[in-house]
Amino acid sequence: MKNYRFIIEYDGSRYNGWQRLKENDNTIQGKLEKVLSLMTGTEVRIIGSGRTDAGVHARGQIANAVMDTRLTTQEIKAYMNRYLPDDIRVNSVDIVSDRFHSRYNASRKTYTYYISTSEKSSVFKRKYLYSYGEKLDIEAMKEASRFLIGEHDFKSFCGNRHMKKSTIRNIYEIDIRYDENEGVVSISYTGDGFLQYMIRIMTGTLIETGRGDRKPEDIVQILDKKDRQYAGYTVPPGGLFLEKVSFD
Amino acid sequence: MKNYRFIIEYDGSRYNGWQRLKENDNTIQGKLEKVLSLMTGTEVRIIGSGRTDAGVHARGQIANAVMDTRLTTQEIKAYMNRYLPDDIRVNSVDIVSDRFHSRYNASRKTYTYYISTSEKSSVFKRKYLYSYGEKLDIEAMKEASRFLIGEHDFKSFCGNRHMKKSTIRNIYEIDIRYDENEGVVSISYTGDGFLQYMIRIMTGTLIETGRGDRKPEDIVQILDKKDRQYAGYTVPPGGLFLEKVSFD
Repeated sequence: MKNYRFIIEYDGSRYNGWQRLKENDNTIQGKLEKVLSLMTGTEVRIIGSGRTDAGVHARGQIANAVMDTRLTTQEIKAYMNRYLPDDIRVNSVDIVSDRFHSRYNASRKTYTYYISTSEKSSVFKRKYLYSYGEKLDIEAMKEASRFLIGEHDFKSFCGNRHMKKSTIRNIYEIDIRYDENEGVVSISYTGDGFLQYMIRIMTGTLIETGRGDRKPEDIVQILDKKDRQYAGYTVPPGGLFLEKVSFD
Repeated sequence: MKNYRFIIEYDGSRYNGWQRLKENDNTIQGKLEKVLSLMTGTEVRIIGSGRTDAGVHARGQIANAVMDTRLTTQEIKAYMNRYLPDDIRVNSVDIVSDRFHSRYNASRKTYTYYISTSEKSSVFKRKYLYSYGEKLDIEAMKEASRFLIGEHDFKSFCGNRHMKKSTIRNIYEIDIRYDENEGVVSISYTGDGFLQYMIRIMTGTLIETGRGDRKPEDIVQILDKKDRQYAGYTVPPGGLFLEKVSFD
């Protein structure tokens, strides 16, 4: 038995997210486990770094699975890419230490959210961005984002009302860019981990700041309130990408 | 009545091509005419520069329509983008001379074909390239492409067996590039016009050269034969984009 690490990209549009909760529930995890189980002839369990929600995409999801096979890592990759649907692709397969765990050992994750501010989104990217369609004040959004950086209790930005575990997280960096040609605002969040819908709620709050409904410094109060109703709306999942996961 | 020129992009995946042949035949032209007729209250006919085939995309299709409206060009653009489906977008609307005709006046067209040579195509671009999946000898393809440049009778590269008009066309430039990171070969063809399936047959022939089944200089004989059966296979439409149309 060896521990294998996978780098995976997927178009999450037609899936119920990463995490498999029961058999055949149309999840990325479920699709991967099915192919690996077919490959090895025994049931394989795969662990992902980030449990992306329904409709969320990934360019660099990291996952690992302990399994027994005579295939080389190149052969495993080729097998998986052959039998997985065309919206899930394995970009690399490596053998790692037995102690490597994709979720527990992940120290930094970067997610990027794409917002189209133009009249109509590019037809070729329309499934991979949020068609917001109005101008945004990027400077105000940048100013607001600075109040989110650091270690805070992000309870106000948590979509799970019954969250029992800690809602304290550390955001290391928020990088907001505007591509003038495309009319697309991208917001990259790097942190030690994110609560359910946290990035989508932070993005909705930044959009409300960018259109002038909130002041940048309002973020301080929203964090203080520790209550979901004070933060902004939850933007749709299709604009969100898990970009990268780092390990110590 | 004024003559309006449109620059249009579309994802051709779910359409029967540009050209409308009858009512409601699910064509790009049909969708545009429906929206313009709704907007003006009278039947509008739109003329495209290139009649892209079913499944072929466009980034810079040029079209024109003579119509009567009080709306400004900005308002026309906004109206069209609002009522067109999300896979057709109007990027610009201008008033042009009455004599401007998108097809007759087009002097140069550039089409690009994208071929993925990697094990599996990028999940985010999978609908916009041909998943060929094998390595190609780019230098051999470049060498072969040189024999296609210039004025030739392209009858061997014409998909229409009953073509009655001239099959002589002039290719000004063929630009072949390989993106190592993505594993994608792109072939851009610029010419005065192209016959039915011509680009897809030239691309199939270049692929057969790139995998070693043909020698670059075989192109000379294929052209000489003036018979479709001597050229290569017709690659699928999803990898093809009408990039740009130029006028004198």
